[in-house]
This record gives sequence, structure tokens and C-alpha cells, in this order.
Amino acid sequence: MDATLRRISAAVEARLRRLFDDDASVGPDALFVRRPAPLLLERVRDLTLRGGKRIRAALVFSGARLVDPAADGGLAVCDAAAAVELLHTYFLIHDDIMDGDLVRRGGPSVHAALAAATGSEKMGRDLAILAGDLAVSLHERLVAGLDVAEDRRRRVAGLFAGMHADVIHGQTLDLLGSAAEEDVADHKTASYTTVGPIAIGAALAGASPEATARLAAIARPIGIAFQLRDDLLGAFGDPAVTGKPLGSDLRSGKRTLLIQEALRSADGGQRAALTAVLGSADASGERIAAAAAAIAATGAKRFCEEKAARLVAGALEELDASGFEAEGRAMIAHIARFAVSRET
Amino acid sequence: MDATLRRISAAVEARLRRLFDDDASVGPDALFVRRPAPLLLERVRDLTLRGGKRIRAALVFSGARLVDPAADGGLAVCDAAAAVELLHTYFLIHDDIMDGDLVRRGGPSVHAALAAATGSEKMGRDLAILAGDLAVSLHERLVAGLDVAEDRRRRVAGLFAGMHADVIHGQTLDLLGSAAEEDVADHKTASYTTVGPIAIGAALAGASPEATARLAAIARPIGIAFQLRDDLLGAFGDPAVTGKPLGSDLRSGKRTLLIQEALRSADGGQRAALTAVLGSADASGERIAAAAAAIAATGAKRFCEEKAARLVAGALEELDASGFEAEGRAMIAHIARFAVSRET
Repeated sequence: MDATLRRISAAVEARLRRLFDDDASVGPDALFVRRPAPLLLERVRDLTLRGGKRIRAALVFSGARLVDPAADGGLAVCDAAAAVELLHTYFLIHDDIMDGDLVRRGGPSVHAALAAATGSEKMGRDLAILAGDLAVSLHERLVAGLDVAEDRRRRVAGLFAGMHADVIHGQTLDLLGSAAEEDVADHKTASYTTVGPIAIGAALAGASPEATARLAAIARPIGIAFQLRDDLLGAFGDPAVTGKPLGSDLRSGKRTLLIQEALRSADGGQRAALTAVLGSADASGERIAAAAAAIAATGAKRFCEEKAARLVAGALEELDASGFEAEGRAMIAHIARFAVSRET
Repeated sequence: MDATLRRISAAVEARLRRLFDDDASVGPDALFVRRPAPLLLERVRDLTLRGGKRIRAALVFSGARLVDPAADGGLAVCDAAAAVELLHTYFLIHDDIMDGDLVRRGGPSVHAALAAATGSEKMGRDLAILAGDLAVSLHERLVAGLDVAEDRRRRVAGLFAGMHADVIHGQTLDLLGSAAEEDVADHKTASYTTVGPIAIGAALAGASPEATARLAAIARPIGIAFQLRDDLLGAFGDPAVTGKPLGSDLRSGKRTLLIQEALRSADGGQRAALTAVLGSADASGERIAAAAAAIAATGAKRFCEEKAARLVAGALEELDASGFEAEGRAMIAHIARFAVSRET
């Protein structure tokens, strides 16, 4: 299974490289610039290829094989997977501007890199808005060219547009801070991490709207579990492995499911250790470590680990009973188990 | 002709209203949120419907009628025109954040409105990034659903993606300030004001890539003339008519073609009046008026007016000799003449 996933990852990265290197123009018409904004294209390329787990790309392939075990022969699946990865790059770039995050995937975030290159924080942010926009336009180009029968193409393009809007909805809920955290995780993470990729893959391989909707219902809890693991890694992970600094959720005051659960179960001392750093941008490493220890002591760490495992187990049980093709089911099971045990 | 253009404008606005009111979801699949981020959707709706000249929408219809005089029967032309208007909304929202412009189309820019609604400038900017992104996702949704034969659909979707990247290229050149102003006008304005809309309309109606490329070459100088007129209105227009404050190009230090030409021909006193306000964000209204008078006195105003008229005349001559359908040619001639004489 790992060899299969490595093959998928390599194919998607090759497709992305080809897009960045050769054909960012619009093809035969050639009415528009061939290499748009090279300074930004380089940053989009760098962030996209710098790492990432390619979970979303693998789930597009898995979704296709749930319906048709031979589906990965089609180039459209690889193009769609690359388009999902570019959409991911775009969300990361715009989110990092909003959150003021300077480190991403073990290197500078795009706005930080562009601020350094131009010597101006404002210019860095402005150019990073455009770099995100450029990533969207490249994703749009891949979706425009999907080589698949018209009825499938239309549904897949609609899924891309709906997924895109859904993530914006989730990020807006997150910024406004007024929604339940599980709603945020649903729209901001699950929609484009599991639901969208699996649905797009399945639709490419010819799944009916009803079958796609059934798969989406199975995919959603896996996406929530993915977000729970992200919350856990943000507080307890190894920054050298995750590529993200420890405690940034705490410092930015984000009420993740983990932190909410910890606050719910905390005693006086634990609560004090937590609130001392929550929303305090310049909290020291020691205080972050003390807050993380407090979170663990409340039982919230175990609670979230168990909840993530339970969500995945329930989803996989449903998937096994679903009658979809075995190869796709095995891939999704593998990826879902990785999602809740990963260190990165 | 004016009645035709009014009919087109009304049809496109009706389509946009329907999108905002009824079907921002992804249709039959319904996997994703039905009304994404209502707070932002309302701002995108308001800016999109608040006015605008609908020149781009009219040019999509014109492009189609250059190839097929009966083309406006097809819903795809109206959907594509609405998608171009949404792309325009998105560019305006993100540009206004970068330029710090607070007024647009006679009302608050989106980031200004969202800052007022949330009581925070940073939150206003962050949400406005997302509002622009939401407009892109709605444009993507319309493009996904274009009801036209597969070969045309694929080319049109590719043109949308290329046009999108081209505008980002132009805005990047503009921000970096290192390119010739005509290159900026080409990529930042012409690409999505004239070149893209006409090419998209023509491709929808079945134009070959070669015919589309010929039309693009004709459309480009009309787009440059459009930008020249914009520069002139920015310095000499009536803010009550344009909906934009006077002198914002001067205050932001933007080296438009008009300002470049004025600096080239200015004597000592004229240059002093100009450089006194160029890039000075808080220049008074009197000083802006004095700078505008100096620009006129250098002859740059007349130079740009004549240049715009010349560009349009040359393009229309070529168009007349092109052999495309008469109805489309008449529409484009009408719109191009409006583009260089408009007061708004």
C-alpha cells in the first residue's frame, strides 16, 4: 500500500512540476502571458513542492478506485489530484497572511518570504494575496483541461467550485470565532481534505450523485479526525517533523476542539496555565510547554486521540459495508489510519 | 444599440441575482454549504450589483455575435458574461486592499465595509481577502456549469484560467513598479476588459483558435485605450459620476501613462506641482487640483485623449476589414467609442 501511495505522490508531483515549468500558459490560443508573475510562480512552486503529505491527492485516486479499480490509468485523476494540491497551496498562503504565521512546511510562509525579498512587510502581504490568487488560477487551468466525459467533467468542476466556497465558509467562521469548533473543522478542513477529494475522484470514475453523497457522509468524520490530529500535533508534535512551530494555536488564541475540551475539564491550576498563553502572541516556550502539560493532565489529549480513532473506526465500518470496490476501500482505510497516527 | 446593451446588462444582472439569491450551492450533489459565508456573500453581491458599466459583459455578447449573430439565444453566453463580472468584482476587492482604497463604485470598498462591520481594520482586510476568494469560487461555479459543446467549453474554461493569471501578472508588475506602464495596462486591464471577454464570447460561438487570436490582437489596443480613459478620469473626472475619489492615482504615487507623459513634458513649475502630490497620501484637494491643472498644461491630457482615440480608431478599422459578422462589429465599435468618451 505504501508503494502505491508513493507512486501516486510521485505522479502528482511530476504533473505539478510540468505545470510550473512548461505550460502555465493557456495552450494553443496563447493569448495570455506564458509565465505569469515569475516571482510569485516561484513561491507557489516552492511551497507546493516543498513537502506536504499528499493525503488529498491520494484520496482523489482512492475515490476513483472505489468506483473503478482501474481508474488510475486516466490522466484526469492525476490532473484533478494536482488541482486539489494547488487549492491547498492557495488556502495555506491566504491563511498564513491572516494568521500572521511565518513558518510553513519547515520554511518561510509565502508572505514572509516575499516580505524578505522586497524588504517590506506590506509588500510581502500584498504579493502573497496575489500568489494565492495565482495558485487558484493554476488550479482553474487544470480543472478546465480535465480529459473526461462531459457529464463527469461538469459534475467534477461543480464539486471543485462547491468545495472551494465551503472552505471559505469555514475560514470565515474561524475568523469570526462565533461558530462551534466542529463546524469550523467540517467546513475548513473536512470539506477539502477528505469529502471533496474522495467525491471528486468518485465522480471522475462515474459515481452517481447519490453514491457520491454516500461517500461524502463517510468521508466527513475522517476529515474531522484529521483536524483533531492537527490540533494535537500543534500542541504536542515535534516542530522538526511537523514543519510548524509548537503552540501557534495557543498563541493565536484559537479555540481548537482540543483546547475547548481542556478548558472544560481543567482544574484551577490547569486553567491558569492555559489562559496564561491563550491569545498571547509572545508567550515563551516554557509557558507553552507548561500549557501543553496542563492540556495532557486534563485528559483532553487522550479524549481527542480516542475521539479521532473512534470517528475513523466508525467511518471505516460504514465504508466496509458500503459495497464500493475493495481496492479503494483498502486505500482509504490506510490513509485514514495514517491521518490519526501521523507525526507530521 | 443602447437598447441592446441595456437588455444585455439586465440579463446579466438577473443571472447574477439568481446566483446570489438561489443557487450558490453546487446543485444536485449538495455536499457543501448552500450559502457560503453570508456576511461576505452580501458584500460580494452588493459590490457586484452596485453599478459598474458592464462593458466586459457586453463584450462577451459582442464576441459571440462576431461569429454567430444569433448567439445571444444561448444561456452559456449570459453565464460567461456573469462570470467575467464576478472575476472583475474579485480583482476590485483584492486591489482595493492592496491600494488601501476606501471608496469604490460610489460606496465603501469591501475591506472598508467589513472593517466598519467588525470594528477592526485587520479583520476587515482579512475578511475582504476571503470575500474576493468567494467571488472567484462563484465565477468558478458559473464556468463549471457552462452549457455548451465540450470542445468549446474546454477552450472557454482555458481562456478564463489564462485571463485570470494574466491579470495577476499585471497587478504584480504594477505593485513592483518595475515594468513599462503599457505592459501593466496590457496585462492588468486589457486582458480582462477587452481581450478575454471578446475571446471568450467568440470561442463560445465556435471561433477557431486562429480567429480568436486575431480578435485578441484587435481587442488589445481598445483595452489600452480604456485604461488611458481611466487614468484621465482619475485626474479630471467628476467623483460623483465615477464613484471614485479624485487624485487617488496621484496620492498613491502610481505612474500611469498620463502621469508619465506629463512628467516627460513638464516645465519646472509643472513638475513641482506634480511631484508635490505624487505618492503623498494626504495631499489636500487644492494641491490635487493644482497637479491636475499642471498635467493639462503640459499637454499630457490631450496627448492621452488623442492616443486613446487613435488606438480605438485603428482597432475598429482592422475589425471592419476582418470579415467577422456585422452585428458584432457594430456592438464592439459602439462600446469602444464609449470606452474613450465615457465620464464614468
